[in-house]
Amino acid sequence: MFFASDNTGPAHPRVIEALTRANEGHAMPYGDDAIMKALAARIREVFEAPEAVVHMVTTGTAANSLILATLATPWQTVFCTPEAHIHEDECNAPEFFTGGAKLTLVPGLNAKMQPDALHRAIEAEETRGVHGPQRGPVSITNITERGTIYSPDEQKALADTARRYDLPVHLDGARLANAIARLNCTPAEITWKSGIDAVSLGGTKNGLLGAEAVIFFDPANSWEFELRRKRAGHLPSKNRYLAVQMLAHLENGLWLECARQANSAAARLARGLKQITDVSLLFEPEANMIFAKFPRATHQRLHAAGAQYYVWEGSLEGEDPQEMLTARLVCDWSVRDEDITRFLTLAQGS
Amino acid sequence: MFFASDNTGPAHPRVIEALTRANEGHAMPYGDDAIMKALAARIREVFEAPEAVVHMVTTGTAANSLILATLATPWQTVFCTPEAHIHEDECNAPEFFTGGAKLTLVPGLNAKMQPDALHRAIEAEETRGVHGPQRGPVSITNITERGTIYSPDEQKALADTARRYDLPVHLDGARLANAIARLNCTPAEITWKSGIDAVSLGGTKNGLLGAEAVIFFDPANSWEFELRRKRAGHLPSKNRYLAVQMLAHLENGLWLECARQANSAAARLARGLKQITDVSLLFEPEANMIFAKFPRATHQRLHAAGAQYYVWEGSLEGEDPQEMLTARLVCDWSVRDEDITRFLTLAQGS
Amino acid sequence: MFFASDNTGPAHPRVIEALTRANEGHAMPYGDDAIMKALAARIREVFEAPEAVVHMVTTGTAANSLILATLATPWQTVFCTPEAHIHEDECNAPEFFTGGAKLTLVPGLNAKMQPDALHRAIEAEETRGVHGPQRGPVSITNITERGTIYSPDEQKALADTARRYDLPVHLDGARLANAIARLNCTPAEITWKSGIDAVSLGGTKNGLLGAEAVIFFDPANSWEFELRRKRAGHLPSKNRYLAVQMLAHLENGLWLECARQANSAAARLARGLKQITDVSLLFEPEANMIFAKFPRATHQRLHAAGAQYYVWEGSLEGEDPQEMLTARLVCDWSVRDEDITRFLTLAQGS
Amino acid sequence: MFFASDNTGPAHPRVIEALTRANEGHAMPYGDDAIMKALAARIREVFEAPEAVVHMVTTGTAANSLILATLATPWQTVFCTPEAHIHEDECNAPEFFTGGAKLTLVPGLNAKMQPDALHRAIEAEETRGVHGPQRGPVSITNITERGTIYSPDEQKALADTARRYDLPVHLDGARLANAIARLNCTPAEITWKSGIDAVSLGGTKNGLLGAEAVIFFDPANSWEFELRRKRAGHLPSKNRYLAVQMLAHLENGLWLECARQANSAAARLARGLKQITDVSLLFEPEANMIFAKFPRATHQRLHAAGAQYYVWEGSLEGEDPQEMLTARLVCDWSVRDEDITRFLTLAQGS
Repeated sequence: MFFASDNTGPAHPRVIEALTRANEGHAMPYGDDAIMKALAARIREVFEAPEAVVHMVTTGTAANSLILATLATPWQTVFCTPEAHIHEDECNAPEFFTGGAKLTLVPGLNAKMQPDALHRAIEAEETRGVHGPQRGPVSITNITERGTIYSPDEQKALADTARRYDLPVHLDGARLANAIARLNCTPAEITWKSGIDAVSLGGTKNGLLGAEAVIFFDPANSWEFELRRKRAGHLPSKNRYLAVQMLAHLENGLWLECARQANSAAARLARGLKQITDVSLLFEPEANMIFAKFPRATHQRLHAAGAQYYVWEGSLEGEDPQEMLTARLVCDWSVRDEDITRFLTLAQGS
Repeated sequence: MFFASDNTGPAHPRVIEALTRANEGHAMPYGDDAIMKALAARIREVFEAPEAVVHMVTTGTAANSLILATLATPWQTVFCTPEAHIHEDECNAPEFFTGGAKLTLVPGLNAKMQPDALHRAIEAEETRGVHGPQRGPVSITNITERGTIYSPDEQKALADTARRYDLPVHLDGARLANAIARLNCTPAEITWKSGIDAVSLGGTKNGLLGAEAVIFFDPANSWEFELRRKRAGHLPSKNRYLAVQMLAHLENGLWLECARQANSAAARLARGLKQITDVSLLFEPEANMIFAKFPRATHQRLHAAGAQYYVWEGSLEGEDPQEMLTARLVCDWSVRDEDITRFLTLAQGS
Repeated sequence: MFFASDNTGPAHPRVIEALTRANEGHAMPYGDDAIMKALAARIREVFEAPEAVVHMVTTGTAANSLILATLATPWQTVFCTPEAHIHEDECNAPEFFTGGAKLTLVPGLNAKMQPDALHRAIEAEETRGVHGPQRGPVSITNITERGTIYSPDEQKALADTARRYDLPVHLDGARLANAIARLNCTPAEITWKSGIDAVSLGGTKNGLLGAEAVIFFDPANSWEFELRRKRAGHLPSKNRYLAVQMLAHLENGLWLECARQANSAAARLARGLKQITDVSLLFEPEANMIFAKFPRATHQRLHAAGAQYYVWEGSLEGEDPQEMLTARLVCDWSVRDEDITRFLTLAQGS
Repeated sequence: MFFASDNTGPAHPRVIEALTRANEGHAMPYGDDAIMKALAARIREVFEAPEAVVHMVTTGTAANSLILATLATPWQTVFCTPEAHIHEDECNAPEFFTGGAKLTLVPGLNAKMQPDALHRAIEAEETRGVHGPQRGPVSITNITERGTIYSPDEQKALADTARRYDLPVHLDGARLANAIARLNCTPAEITWKSGIDAVSLGGTKNGLLGAEAVIFFDPANSWEFELRRKRAGHLPSKNRYLAVQMLAHLENGLWLECARQANSAAARLARGLKQITDVSLLFEPEANMIFAKFPRATHQRLHAAGAQYYVWEGSLEGEDPQEMLTARLVCDWSVRDEDITRFLTLAQGS
């Protein structure tokens, strides 16, 4: 019963197979290998973006921070939600990589930034000339850190707001495949067609070993990114082993297949939870992440039985067995049906 | 004929096998997995260092820079040779990670730092109170960037010099296995027993896919390193896939077996080159790296035939076919005997 | 009619006289001069803090940022209000000097941080181990950026909250003299006796030419501060000209005399404004700063007559003459009675 | 007998007078004052550079570092001599302000960079693509840190070399007036006419209280510099007190008058020293700085009599009274003839 995060699951066997096949002979290092060239071509095709440039890194934090450092100057502020991974979960990585830019928190609805709020936040900055932070990039996450999803139109409304101030837009796509699988849209529609300038395209949470792609739709950013990646220790020498993972992902739609499996596991789990008295969902789950409230006693029973997930609000320790605590439950591509069944049975208390 | 670098070769099949075996079920992320615990225990055993702490990263630049940032303040200077990877090949990564520390270049002999020169360099710093850079860590590389080797005693002489000024010592061990294989010493002798405080233990150049271990012999450095690693985007979520590579390396001495293969391939290549008229070695190769001078015409013949290596000094283009250009030739564990034979035949011009 | 800021006024003549007297002969540079020694002794006496260390800088931003950089690591977050000068008016200087620390905004009441809100903000950080920002210093401003004042007890309640988490407390005292003059407390009571660890003691806004003192009550911070000051270009070579300003300030209570003049000018201005129909004060002014709302037509009349102040909310341009716009009015020590009278007459519209 | 540095002397009385006159009424802060406008106009006139932009800061380290940060990216290296103030005397300030750029040391002759050596140093960088530091600005000092002087032609030869690689050139002019006074050239000839892009124009060492001007001949750099200055805490609120110092300097050529006095004091001192047995000058002094070798006994006699200067090489303590130690002797504008006479008498030992 592993619902702690989608980064706890294994890599998909087809990824391991591709990696094993790639382990033949010598290959030029630092991205100058044939697999990387094939991957870049494939991404341009999948995203319908013939000019796009692609770089590989090993973590989402690296992808996000290096992109933001390329798009923002140190005296700017990045607009994001209070729930953004770049704000809450990167130990000040964006501040480090940008050389001291600030993050301005734009309140959202279930972690989704609202165009009006973004407009107000942008307007409130840069009113003091040289004294205040200057306006910088807008960064959104799809699916969000709360499992909610922006439609292409919703993204476009935000991007249009940014565009009015000439601000670039970054998409943290650590779980972008889950959004695309659910929205049934094209990769182009959820990125450049809805105003995105740069994407952190996640793979690790979706069945890879540890590989994320950075995509810039404007190739002018490429060389600066390359220098920043190198001096941050994120230029992989044996790049082929990163590229081949992402390439395997894009072969025959494996990335969306994995995402669909994760989404439907979460949907099944959510359906089951909703039928249990004492369990309430904070909001309707749209992809592979569920926030659910239920009594401490239920949490304790689940944990005792080995269920793994984060208690998001409240503490397992505590006197009142009826106090309601919030669980965050995340499904990865490999979650087994029997684990969901067992979890639901335990949650039901029967 | 792949002699461009030891990071162009494939991973050792036993590493791929171990990785495949590790790809089972769920594992807690960020280093909290069973394989990482096994690896840390194994490294403590192999290095006879029961207190040592171990962290995994994916590149040597990350290992070096994160260690230096942990050991140095932004107002210090790091003592290294002009040939050091941290100086020449990391696009100012140490300056970035340390928040602006300086590198003081200590002249060496064939890239080996000399205790007298180090002593003079340390003495020359910190003579101006608050105005000048303050003395910081000493960083050496073994085997060096020119393929030469420090004996444990030579390292100790440098570390003793540093110790007199209370300066910590970092060992860039991107190719440490090659040194140990050649010196036939213990890992402890070439690290903490000869005064080293922190090691970048390379794996990528020696048959892994992309995995380097950071070892601190004083565990007090661990938490700061952990925070720095996270905010630099170098904390791997699916850490097991890094740990298992290094663990496979240390099983049954695979790391030294790979290093020995690389060293002996280089030895064979060097022996052959020495017998060719017009070829001279810049210095006696001690591990898996050779610097050789021979005429442009020979270089052109080799390159035309597909040999891959860097022309270290001089340019392939040029009028005089007899001009002497320097080649850097590096052997990895997988270099084939027939490639060496073919290279030597071509070099001989017959 | 100069109410734009208290940094627009001249230096007090007694400061110029002291400066002129100090311009005799040679003096050792970088703070090693007799005047600096006298100043440090005087500050220790005035603040009843025999261990305190004192450093001079030329701007408040430098004082604040250098103190925060000394107290915070790059992976921490500084707790301050949304109105804090360090957040709104320093173009990311704290982020720059700390090497990328974050600022966590603690909502306040009229720019005064509340202990409960601080407690909640501290609790909300550092709940994600290595992933989130770590808890760092608390920074408050007295008088605040809205002209309100913390009593020693109010400061102590905040400092006690910080202390429970072992967090140091910084006081931005750009206008500390105005607070002391109004509270009629001792400098010790409003600083270390109420839990403050480090003070930016402003002088520039209070009748100096450009001189701020940094005071650490724990001398252990001194050397790191000194190194940070030097490498930030804030170590003055001819330090005597800074020290003598602050020393003149502390002679015969000139600093409090200047502050009292500024405060009472503001009090007179506020009293007058309150008697005018259509003018309302946002909150009762406690020192030398007033926030007042009145119709656009009045603003236009005042500006046309040469009054200088910032329109804080709203715009001078606009169609509706009755729309209410907020003015920020700041009095410095040199404001003339006749200017206040004239301003009030103009505001009254008669 | 004050020869420790030219920053130990007093400000020129005419500067104090101008400052006192400027202390009238209110003035807009942050450079938006009438005196600053007059100064900028005056500098454009004196330097025959109608497009130049001017900013004031309080220290040479701030001027140098802020200029370099504006001209260099964090992944570049700055070319300077080993004796450069930015390398030896700023506690890594350039590394801090640039966000981690490197300094490449170009060997010089008596601290003067040679075009050939610069050419070789530039060529040696950027040979490794993304891996090595990228080529950045060239920074020279005139007069140098050893008191030697570049002629306009010598500067131009260096700037031409830089220009071939599209690299900007920075002039650290902490003592530029001393060079102009000696060379009898125009300010334009020693700056933009000889290829300089940005100047740190020193005033503090030449009779001001603490004021340095930054001049960019290309105004495109101005806004970025302004943002960098602000976030480094170097934007002075009461800017008029800085501007008025520099303006007084440029009135009736006071800056050159002060420089001439300092130069001729040094010339007299040098002439006297040369006539003393046992005293040798390291090189012919060209401006206001002398490096002289004489026996420890003489040093001890001078110090006992109160002479202030730095022993540059060697230590006052030591057994052998005949050991030769090097003195650095610097004259400021206010050095008195009788002090020189007394120093020479003491040095002579009679």
